[in-house]
Amino acid sequence: MAQHGSLEEFLAVAVDAAKRAGEIIREGFYETKHVVHKGQVDLVTETDKACEDLIFNHLKQQFPSHKFIGEETTAACGDFELTDEPTWIVDPVDGTTNFVHGFPSVCVSIGLTIGKIPTVGVVYDPIIDELFTGIHGKGAFLNGKPIKVSSKSELVKSLLGTEVGTQRDNLTLEATTRRINNLLFKVRSLRMCGSCALDLCWVACGRLDLFYLIGFGGPWDVAGGAVIVKEAGGVLFDPSGSDFNITAQRVAATNPHLKDAFIEALQQSG
Amino acid sequence: MAQHGSLEEFLAVAVDAAKRAGEIIREGFYETKHVVHKGQVDLVTETDKACEDLIFNHLKQQFPSHKFIGEETTAACGDFELTDEPTWIVDPVDGTTNFVHGFPSVCVSIGLTIGKIPTVGVVYDPIIDELFTGIHGKGAFLNGKPIKVSSKSELVKSLLGTEVGTQRDNLTLEATTRRINNLLFKVRSLRMCGSCALDLCWVACGRLDLFYLIGFGGPWDVAGGAVIVKEAGGVLFDPSGSDFNITAQRVAATNPHLKDAFIEALQQSG
Repeated sequence: MAQHGSLEEFLAVAVDAAKRAGEIIREGFYETKHVVHKGQVDLVTETDKACEDLIFNHLKQQFPSHKFIGEETTAACGDFELTDEPTWIVDPVDGTTNFVHGFPSVCVSIGLTIGKIPTVGVVYDPIIDELFTGIHGKGAFLNGKPIKVSSKSELVKSLLGTEVGTQRDNLTLEATTRRINNLLFKVRSLRMCGSCALDLCWVACGRLDLFYLIGFGGPWDVAGGAVIVKEAGGVLFDPSGSDFNITAQRVAATNPHLKDAFIEALQQSG
Repeated sequence: MAQHGSLEEFLAVAVDAAKRAGEIIREGFYETKHVVHKGQVDLVTETDKACEDLIFNHLKQQFPSHKFIGEETTAACGDFELTDEPTWIVDPVDGTTNFVHGFPSVCVSIGLTIGKIPTVGVVYDPIIDELFTGIHGKGAFLNGKPIKVSSKSELVKSLLGTEVGTQRDNLTLEATTRRINNLLFKVRSLRMCGSCALDLCWVACGRLDLFYLIGFGGPWDVAGGAVIVKEAGGVLFDPSGSDFNITAQRVAATNPHLKDAFIEALQQSG
């Protein structure tokens, strides 16, 4: 039995919340969705809201003194502030576009920061029942089995993941595709599956060797995956090469062997 | 019991072959692979060869008078010729790069052409156990349940799939990313998951609304999926808007409502 207030207890409660939200996602996956547009291509569904409510209620009941940041609450109520207090950062449905289209690669992402450091992470893909978990200093796991990042050391043998995001202004799109073009000359191939949190977990378990994303929604996209990547032996940083900042909406992840070459490639691709 | 020599019998034997090959793929999925490079980023594994042998032996035993075209045999022995004879066209592992990296989205693709028309199609994803099947004039199915293409009619609400292929020369890559850039202004989002045959099946079951690929390996990438898309109510054509040619290494697929707008967008993106 996990000690009350221990990191293991935090994880256990978060896993419970993620699995309950996952049930709602799984049930709604093949139904017609009522979609609201946040932007022309940025979507939110009733499931996003229902899952966020469920997760927040579950966590608040157990940890009433903790702080909470959620994608949908923030979208509705404006800015958030990340403090040193224990803070749960939640994306109830990461991959909402996939969810709306019935395209697999959808997950619940729950991260806990303490002193602004990602400390507990849970990413749950309810469609194929894959649960990624991590606790700072205590390893990363997929369905309970330890995972680690790939051991690749050459870009040309590496599989790169990224996403095109939801911004469709000329400047952003030109930068996005120029970067992709430059990187494609250096890596083996490119995957885009529509969920930032799952991309991070796929780096953590070695399915992807490289991942970067510039200009995503907020810390809820990375708070869960960040712990999992680090605990799987991976490295997280800003695509410029500077330190990873959970509130900066910019992230890159890989294994330690590829870090320098990846940063150089990202710098040259800008 | 399917009649000997009937389309149903052809399908049943192909499903049996695909499932047996799928077992080999599933067993090898999490193991270290012995990889041979066809090109700098084009790979082949022992599993590709073992699966092609298994599938060909199984089909030849049942249908000794039929013709056979396989990705690995063709790669090893040179060109193929597609005649009017019943011809089995096989990609034993579509998504070899995914297979090598332990990245899901890997499948067996088996198509039968009669009079050069794709007539029977089987695409089997052994990792998540999804079996797509189709017979000319008799519908398309996912694990035995009928499937149909999406009913979307606006590009801006559509999810587009494509792949970056294995060619890394300047001209091809520039054209690939220019096309992506232009299309991103018009669609909701973009997915690249690494398997042409699965992309076609995902159009057939509505997970993707649009798919195109220019410059893939050969008819084995599309022979199975082509029947499945058509039988799910979809349309297949050349990205230029002209008729689909199974040997042209160019394909586009969508639903009938989106066809004209998709062709226009593809023409403008060149």
